[in-house]
Amino acid sequence: MSAHPRLSLNQATVKYAPLLDALAVTRQAGIGAIGLWREPVAEVGLEKACALVADSGLRVSSLCRGGFFTAPPGPARTAALDENRRAIEETAALAAAGAPGSAPVLVLVAGGLPDGDRDLTGARERARDAIGALVDDATAAGVVLAVEPMHPVFAADRGVVSTLGQALDVAEQFPAEAVGVVVDTYHVWWDPELPAQVARAGRGGRIASYQVADWVTPLAADVLVSRGLPGDGHVDLAGTSALVEAAGYRGDVEVEVFSQELWDADPAVVAARTAAAFAAAAGVRG
Amino acid sequence: MSAHPRLSLNQATVKYAPLLDALAVTRQAGIGAIGLWREPVAEVGLEKACALVADSGLRVSSLCRGGFFTAPPGPARTAALDENRRAIEETAALAAAGAPGSAPVLVLVAGGLPDGDRDLTGARERARDAIGALVDDATAAGVVLAVEPMHPVFAADRGVVSTLGQALDVAEQFPAEAVGVVVDTYHVWWDPELPAQVARAGRGGRIASYQVADWVTPLAADVLVSRGLPGDGHVDLAGTSALVEAAGYRGDVEVEVFSQELWDADPAVVAARTAAAFAAAAGVRG
Repeated sequence: MSAHPRLSLNQATVKYAPLLDALAVTRQAGIGAIGLWREPVAEVGLEKACALVADSGLRVSSLCRGGFFTAPPGPARTAALDENRRAIEETAALAAAGAPGSAPVLVLVAGGLPDGDRDLTGARERARDAIGALVDDATAAGVVLAVEPMHPVFAADRGVVSTLGQALDVAEQFPAEAVGVVVDTYHVWWDPELPAQVARAGRGGRIASYQVADWVTPLAADVLVSRGLPGDGHVDLAGTSALVEAAGYRGDVEVEVFSQELWDADPAVVAARTAAAFAAAAGVRG
Repeated sequence: MSAHPRLSLNQATVKYAPLLDALAVTRQAGIGAIGLWREPVAEVGLEKACALVADSGLRVSSLCRGGFFTAPPGPARTAALDENRRAIEETAALAAAGAPGSAPVLVLVAGGLPDGDRDLTGARERARDAIGALVDDATAAGVVLAVEPMHPVFAADRGVVSTLGQALDVAEQFPAEAVGVVVDTYHVWWDPELPAQVARAGRGGRIASYQVADWVTPLAADVLVSRGLPGDGHVDLAGTSALVEAAGYRGDVEVEVFSQELWDADPAVVAARTAAAFAAAAGVRG
């Protein structure tokens, strides 16, 4: 059985599977690519992880995730930048270990407001400055920093970059080879500016990653894990995929679904369900 | 004891109090105005409600709420429009019964996607068309329809109008005397376009209501009731109030907090807490 040729299983969808298992279920489901996360990579160590990825024959579509750099100047910000530099090196190594077509893309989540801080504009400016501080490292490593706008429900505590337009305002201050954006349907589906901003991202060659997940209601008690597989919710995935296609994106498309129900299921079953849901509802061309 | 002269207690903050009690606790807290809801008004009937409001000596700052008109043409849409016409009449009557300075403002929440419908753009267009269908009724009654952009977390199931800019795009298709917008900090605080859009709303004379509530984390299991009194959360209320002030808004400012903790408390205590929180943290001039 072979899944859609551009499908990539983001490892968060099978969150509890160790790297070796995640690679195995991805391949067994006929999926050709995987989006990796730093934590399961760290569990086995980078060198071993690269060997496992190479053995798997899978493409690597991204590494999740860097960012969390809204702290004001000081030790916390310095530590965050150092951590991101390690993530950049990991991204380069893992993409090199992956099959041809792998993408050296590091997904960046800005982080929320520091404790007790109500200056959202200031936090956003610090996130931009942090990206600027990492551009030379990314360029040297051949890695694209992919700024992920997060749904506004997370603006306070997770990601202060809230719209695709805002992510592009940041990315466009730097070369497209070094800084792009993530289009994640879960985060941006509601945005009335989406068609215009996806087109803008395409014109500038800024779409570094396209992720699909559905918005389901009623919301789960923890909105962070209130996501569904393609077709399970309210998002016009076919329409959004057509926008992204028209904008020129031809890379792998990740299914990244934070869902307790999926996490509690057998990862092999989840991988197969993901492949089926993607083929049926994501609206991505072959 | 007298509260801030421009404070209005939105009745949702003391949701379980019948109208008579809500009026009483508002007055006892030294608050000069109240934002009413249709359900507690209906419990006593419009005529009696108007008499109670007149007796209270309070200003009426708005009536919540109309809207919920995203259904496609058919009986459901017709029923929704008829319901909104009744709400327009109620708004006019209650504002006339209130003390001088009362505002004949009907807050409109667009409603979510119809069941099984993924066409967000279409739902938004139908909401705009519904407002257009009500403009003559509002004008005849001297009522302002106030389009409330809702936080994008509610785009699927509650309100498809997601940003202040989008609400203004709708409102500006109609005369400012008939259609304005609501600026509710809980719904719009995250928006990078907020300063520009508040200024735009002010230039056009479109700010029909200003509501303050804070964004608290961690989010409650039901995000709908995950709000806090001014000062309890992450919103820069002083900065936002300064924007609204600079945009020329001089009307009453409602505190509308959906919070199970407040709903479970004594309404008189909640009114007093609201007055204190507003004075301390809302940043509204006298």
